[in-house]
Amino acid sequence: MRSLADSKQVNDNVEKIRRGESESVGNPEDLPHFRLPAVQSASEKASKSTTSAGKKEMPPIGTYVLPHPIWTEEQLHEVKVTHKQPDCLVDRLAYRTVRLFRGGFDVFSGFKFGTRNEKKWLNRICFLETVAGVPGMVAAMMRHMTSLRRLQRDQGWIHTLLEEAENERMHLLTALQLKEPSTLFRLCVIGAQGVFVTMFSISYVISAKFCHRFVGYLEEEAVKTYTKCLEDIDEPDGPMKHWRTQPAPDVAIRYWKMKPESTMRDVILAIRADEAHHRIVNHSLASLSKDEFNPYKPGK
Amino acid sequence: MRSLADSKQVNDNVEKIRRGESESVGNPEDLPHFRLPAVQSASEKASKSTTSAGKKEMPPIGTYVLPHPIWTEEQLHEVKVTHKQPDCLVDRLAYRTVRLFRGGFDVFSGFKFGTRNEKKWLNRICFLETVAGVPGMVAAMMRHMTSLRRLQRDQGWIHTLLEEAENERMHLLTALQLKEPSTLFRLCVIGAQGVFVTMFSISYVISAKFCHRFVGYLEEEAVKTYTKCLEDIDEPDGPMKHWRTQPAPDVAIRYWKMKPESTMRDVILAIRADEAHHRIVNHSLASLSKDEFNPYKPGK
Ligand SMILES: [Fe+2]
Ligand SMILES: [Fe+2]
Ligand SMILES: [Fe+2]
Ligand SMILES: [Fe+2]
Repeated sequence: MRSLADSKQVNDNVEKIRRGESESVGNPEDLPHFRLPAVQSASEKASKSTTSAGKKEMPPIGTYVLPHPIWTEEQLHEVKVTHKQPDCLVDRLAYRTVRLFRGGFDVFSGFKFGTRNEKKWLNRICFLETVAGVPGMVAAMMRHMTSLRRLQRDQGWIHTLLEEAENERMHLLTALQLKEPSTLFRLCVIGAQGVFVTMFSISYVISAKFCHRFVGYLEEEAVKTYTKCLEDIDEPDGPMKHWRTQPAPDVAIRYWKMKPESTMRDVILAIRADEAHHRIVNHSLASLSKDEFNPYKPGK
Repeated sequence: MRSLADSKQVNDNVEKIRRGESESVGNPEDLPHFRLPAVQSASEKASKSTTSAGKKEMPPIGTYVLPHPIWTEEQLHEVKVTHKQPDCLVDRLAYRTVRLFRGGFDVFSGFKFGTRNEKKWLNRICFLETVAGVPGMVAAMMRHMTSLRRLQRDQGWIHTLLEEAENERMHLLTALQLKEPSTLFRLCVIGAQGVFVTMFSISYVISAKFCHRFVGYLEEEAVKTYTKCLEDIDEPDGPMKHWRTQPAPDVAIRYWKMKPESTMRDVILAIRADEAHHRIVNHSLASLSKDEFNPYKPGK
């Protein structure tokens, strides 16, 4: 009945949706990488008869994600900390900006001082991922609007940028499984988003090349950060050694199609491989001109 | 080599991309609904040896599109002009706004006066589709940013909104196959986008419900418009009767997986079915609360 939409049909459709009976309602069990979360299976019956929005009744996080790379064991382990030498003014500017951000953040967040522990790591990861989800979405929107406004095709960049944005948001939602954010933390996130969205949007209008190079360098830092996290996990008496055995959250196992017995260490390996992927993608996009075709296929 | 990204690897990757040899380079022939456009097959050999960005060498438009509904013959024909009675202040406000826009546009564009012809139709379609591509992308970005900022999941709305945005952009790119936009037309498009993006973004912050209802009513008008276009095509001596036999552009045949012998009439039928889909989707989203789960699956 998608051909019709008068009051009655809209209300019927909404009722159906709320009863979970809509023909389009997602059945997560149909999905290739579905795993029934414990909390859902417990309330499964209840969720079919109630209409109010309770978290327990929702399909799991990541039910409808864009295609994204699934890493092999080999790919997870061959990721290296690398640095692309800046070779023009824009590159140098982008690199300086990233170094400045990183330096400021290390001091301001207190990460530079004292011993590292799980709380510090989770704070850092969650905060950085709320920022990391911004560039891909802003860039995708800018290119979409440019295509509409200039009456010309996009050259295949948008889907890759959206994939990156969603992937970073999944990093955040994964890390949040282990963290209950404080009010102060929430305020910092809101402030940072306001500033960063504004700055990045303006920068993208001025120089898309600068922005992709900036993200490339940001991802170099992300790979460094997650490599350090892995060191803290692997060090015999390291502050994070419990992540060697702590089970991966359900959302991570579904999203990266991991083995059910995977650990937090495996999650960090997967996130680091994602960051390394964004690193080469953004450095490459920065080196292409805006109207060259983006060769990255969906999920590759 | 996605695990590494120093200067040499980035440059090698860009070189590979430009030579069309990147491991990630999209081969459109691998795609399920690929049809080799005449112009590309002619320059196929050349495109492998040159590095500069020429339009002829690009993979065809719509190479990497999001999943979207493919309509059956029956679905194409059962679309009806419908109207959802406004049943609260927000609904009435949304409906009034749409009626105002439509009335103003009919007069301003000269569509209301004189006889209709292909030029008028293409002007109208192209202009409206440059506007129609805005709401889905703005709403998707807003929800993405909200998820990052509030540190919570999105409830599955983003992918549907992105699908809608891309679908409208494909309508535009299809119509542009028949039209060479004038400078005046381009200026109008730029002006309209500036105003509409600003207004819609601010409105979305104030009331997402208003915005989805507004799009629902906008799509009611779109279904009306394309139904009228079909009348102009089907009328025995109608101003658009040549669209009964005029071949559909390649991009349309690929995007909607149409039969190769499809006509412009079939294209308008497909576009109208898309608009009817956005109509029920947006009216339904407007009637759901912001944190209810969106039941529409990708491409459904
Ligand atoms: Fe990340
Ligand atoms: Fe990242
Ligand atoms: Fe449209
Ligand atoms: Fe539409």
